Amino acid sequence: MRKLNDYTKSRQAFERAVKVIPSGIYGHQGPAEGCYVPIEAFPLFSSKAQGSYLWDLDGNRFIDYMCAYGPNVLGYNDPDVDEAAAKQRAIGDCTTLPNTKMIDFAELLVDTVASADWAFFAKNGNDTTSLAVRVARAYTHRKKIVFFKGYYHGVSAWTQKLDYTGVIEEDVMHNIYVDWNDFDELAEVFEKNKGQIAAVIGQPYMHGNFMDNELPAKDFWQKVRKLCTQSGTVLIVDDVRAGFRLDIAGSDHYFGFEADLICFCKALANGYNVSALCGKDFLKNTVSAMSYTGSYWLSAVPFAAGIACIEKMKKLNCPKTLIEKGTTLSNGLIDAAKEYGFDLHVTGVPSLFYLRIADDPSLVMHQQWIAECVKRGVFFTNHHNHFINASLSDEDIKETVEVAKEAFQVIRDRYPLK
Amino acid sequence: MRKLNDYTKSRQAFERAVKVIPSGIYGHQGPAEGCYVPIEAFPLFSSKAQGSYLWDLDGNRFIDYMCAYGPNVLGYNDPDVDEAAAKQRAIGDCTTLPNTKMIDFAELLVDTVASADWAFFAKNGNDTTSLAVRVARAYTHRKKIVFFKGYYHGVSAWTQKLDYTGVIEEDVMHNIYVDWNDFDELAEVFEKNKGQIAAVIGQPYMHGNFMDNELPAKDFWQKVRKLCTQSGTVLIVDDVRAGFRLDIAGSDHYFGFEADLICFCKALANGYNVSALCGKDFLKNTVSAMSYTGSYWLSAVPFAAGIACIEKMKKLNCPKTLIEKGTTLSNGLIDAAKEYGFDLHVTGVPSLFYLRIADDPSLVMHQQWIAECVKRGVFFTNHHNHFINASLSDEDIKETVEVAKEAFQVIRDRYPLK
Repeated sequence: MRKLNDYTKSRQAFERAVKVIPSGIYGHQGPAEGCYVPIEAFPLFSSKAQGSYLWDLDGNRFIDYMCAYGPNVLGYNDPDVDEAAAKQRAIGDCTTLPNTKMIDFAELLVDTVASADWAFFAKNGNDTTSLAVRVARAYTHRKKIVFFKGYYHGVSAWTQKLDYTGVIEEDVMHNIYVDWNDFDELAEVFEKNKGQIAAVIGQPYMHGNFMDNELPAKDFWQKVRKLCTQSGTVLIVDDVRAGFRLDIAGSDHYFGFEADLICFCKALANGYNVSALCGKDFLKNTVSAMSYTGSYWLSAVPFAAGIACIEKMKKLNCPKTLIEKGTTLSNGLIDAAKEYGFDLHVTGVPSLFYLRIADDPSLVMHQQWIAECVKRGVFFTNHHNHFINASLSDEDIKETVEVAKEAFQVIRDRYPLK
Repeated sequence: MRKLNDYTKSRQAFERAVKVIPSGIYGHQGPAEGCYVPIEAFPLFSSKAQGSYLWDLDGNRFIDYMCAYGPNVLGYNDPDVDEAAAKQRAIGDCTTLPNTKMIDFAELLVDTVASADWAFFAKNGNDTTSLAVRVARAYTHRKKIVFFKGYYHGVSAWTQKLDYTGVIEEDVMHNIYVDWNDFDELAEVFEKNKGQIAAVIGQPYMHGNFMDNELPAKDFWQKVRKLCTQSGTVLIVDDVRAGFRLDIAGSDHYFGFEADLICFCKALANGYNVSALCGKDFLKNTVSAMSYTGSYWLSAVPFAAGIACIEKMKKLNCPKTLIEKGTTLSNGLIDAAKEYGFDLHVTGVPSLFYLRIADDPSLVMHQQWIAECVKRGVFFTNHHNHFINASLSDEDIKETVEVAKEAFQVIRDRYPLK
């Protein structure tokens, strides 16, 4: 059996952190939200990263299946992306005027993404989803927005639930929530709100947290697309999390339809800070009329990195390769689970696989298994989808399955089959 | 007389840009919003930047008084900041867990900024102003926000005017607007809305566009501070633009008061992409309870850059030095104007000086003078404050005044004194 990780230095650093940072580590990377249950199994701070590996502050190495929650798509510190970025940095990054790398990147996205006639760059995924909704309202002169339950579209007030602190009812009063994959419910909502729905916003498939991930039902998106077109409603695809891990031409293309607006962020530049809203020609003038920007939005280094990242993803046939790696891993984990008498559900597209041991509805058994994997150097989280990156090797996958087996053994010993 | 710039390549690039990017160049860096009137005087794309200089695509060199609209505070490509950033990049930037550089940076800000008991990092200035308002609403359980007319607090819907496309009345219905420096009006608003005002949000002084910039009246902030405290209202200072160009301890400290929440962005890391909300202890738990983050918010490279930037600003006695450079320049420009019979108004703090030739209320004469400066290699804009950076030399200032004189001569020839 493998030696279990010690996290003493991570804990000491966290004690420093909570003194000067609210909650110490906030958001999806923090212990409160990071699907880190049970928390004692997880490290809290990194010391370095390379390829498919992350090292924590105590020197433990992890095969990292969170990939910075998405941005790491080629492998940490990819030499081609880093070289392109460094070359641009020497010339200029955040300057009074944009560099023409911005145009090169926009042209490349328009060439690459099927539903893109133009590209608009920002910093957060949330910048692009917020712009998309604003554009839809401006274009349609309507207020209502339809969401699919289980969604996550960022941190702005318009996309929160009322029980999030600081969100007021006026922020969300025109939001309508429907069940994922329930076209009849959606059609009914359109009928009841005729001429009032500015946009439908959805992730390409339901990859929410704390739920088995669910692909679109047959023809679901095609019917949504048709309904939106007939109703003059803008169809927004939030491809922030799945983008470039399903299809280099966009996740709408993967599922055989075209969005009016599509939001990219995480896998766009292998960790360099850029997001992009792409869209159809008929909305371009509406975006042009917006006052929407930020201090670093036209910085050139992330554009250079993004160009290198997309070109390398194309060269590596990237989404297909990631899905193949994810499939090999998923099959290995499912077989390993069976060997120890567990029913492991692996859902979603394999490049963003979601894990759940289905034998125990309380999820405690699942969380304990994840904990045993993490303590042995495989960075899974409990209730969030995972991410595959291109530098993940066959050896990494083999080692992951071996660790998973050790962890299954521990859980089986704890909960023997009757 | 100097040779006038040619912008052929910039124009050709812009023709490419408008095909794939809404409005070609959007936001404050674009020709539509960048206070670029008359536009033919301005370049549109940069080719490189170094120290206090920017080169455009046609090879014209500019003494750059926009400093990327703020981020360039030490000089473009500052070697110390770039070295710290490169060192961190080799280890890891955007990874699954944060690096302890995040803690170091938070500790440094808490040590540096007078009103900071903690620091929360994000990417846009807008992320921090939006969080500040959310925190104020959550803490007070109130909805109303007071703004000072002429404000700019970012691009989120809550801080826009209703005539901005895509903004709906519900986004802004709890906003109250008062005149800058009018304490009586503010007190009246508080009286009329007793127990309902969540926050007052203000820039440290009125540095709006298309207006002479205006410092706070004597005791204005002290009276606002007292009123907020008495009323249980959160006082938010938006120091995104002015931060670290007035006082290393925060612009509230410069004017002798303490904010409850203070927003930083532009000068925080010399162009590396990071923003920070700092605040008082009594609000820390409220922030801790928020779900508020983004894909790149805990990236380590900007933290390393920010630490190096703040340390170097301290070493250079930076705000004081920038104000001195700005004062020398302002005096030189005012004297040059007088020499040619013009009344040049220079307003705001000299490190963020705002220019206006007061002889012509239509501002056409002013715009023509700015145009003549830009065409001769001094990058001013028409109706936006300017920024001083630490690498601006005495020679740069001398050359700027010479260019300004040539430009005054051109305008005087065009509009002879009667």
